[in-house]
Amino acid sequence: MSRLDSVIRRLEAQRKCLGAAAGEIANTDGVVFELGLGNGRTFDHLRELLPDREIFVFDRNVAAHPSCIPDDNHLFLGEFQQTLVDVSERFAGQCALVHADVGTGVEGSSRSMARFLSEILEPFLKNGAIVASDQMFNIAGCEALPLPAGVAPNRYFLLKKIR
Amino acid sequence: MSRLDSVIRRLEAQRKCLGAAAGEIANTDGVVFELGLGNGRTFDHLRELLPDREIFVFDRNVAAHPSCIPDDNHLFLGEFQQTLVDVSERFAGQCALVHADVGTGVEGSSRSMARFLSEILEPFLKNGAIVASDQMFNIAGCEALPLPAGVAPNRYFLLKKIR
Repeated sequence: MSRLDSVIRRLEAQRKCLGAAAGEIANTDGVVFELGLGNGRTFDHLRELLPDREIFVFDRNVAAHPSCIPDDNHLFLGEFQQTLVDVSERFAGQCALVHADVGTGVEGSSRSMARFLSEILEPFLKNGAIVASDQMFNIAGCEALPLPAGVAPNRYFLLKKIR
Repeated sequence: MSRLDSVIRRLEAQRKCLGAAAGEIANTDGVVFELGLGNGRTFDHLRELLPDREIFVFDRNVAAHPSCIPDDNHLFLGEFQQTLVDVSERFAGQCALVHADVGTGVEGSSRSMARFLSEILEPFLKNGAIVASDQMFNIAGCEALPLPAGVAPNRYFLLKKIR
């Protein structure tokens, strides 16, 4: 499989998982967290999928297409270790969806980021909330959902808060 | 359509057009020119599609994944205006396929690059050669081929040298 094949498969898996996540939270009120703005593609996709939700974006810095940058009230710039702690009271129990595209490409650092996020994200999640991510998270009270058809195991991950 | 939808559509169009181009040149000997290495994805795809062809890559500089960088004998670094002129004798009439992913995102400069390449590429092309590109080229002796199913008009372009 070429790298062209591979990127198409990765982006399609991402789109399918975001679609599935949006369906799962249809009856769960709450805000959306986008961890990692990157070029802004998935933020753009999420605001199309979920036009009535507030989406809050967290990233170290802004490198997105100008049309895909949230306004200042929905953007938290800095390390997740800082920004997520800063908003922990404000958004406690308020999240219906967290999308985390945070793989660094370096296995050890991706794993340690996943461990950190697994801990810090838990108190934000409403019952019924979905966490969609490119890394495996292990969050208390969450169970793994089956992936949409055509998404290879371990390419993307869907968790649902069930208690 | 979100930017995620849009990039998936663009990459799929690219893959379909490269597949169609590879089929078209099945009975035409000759080398392949890849204009614009970028991240190396289409170079990687071309070498999978055409394992028995020599592929020569032209770009201003190398920003590709390490596994997708051609060896020094197949890489011409510099402005196309220089490198393509440098190889004009060596490869005259030798190309079976040119893939040019050269849009700059700035309309005027993409058009002027397309005009320049339309002129300079013509003498490289064998009869039966294919030019696949993200910009419309106007090359003497070439006719436009229909695009593969599902590729929107003007998203990609296929030309065939017929005389």
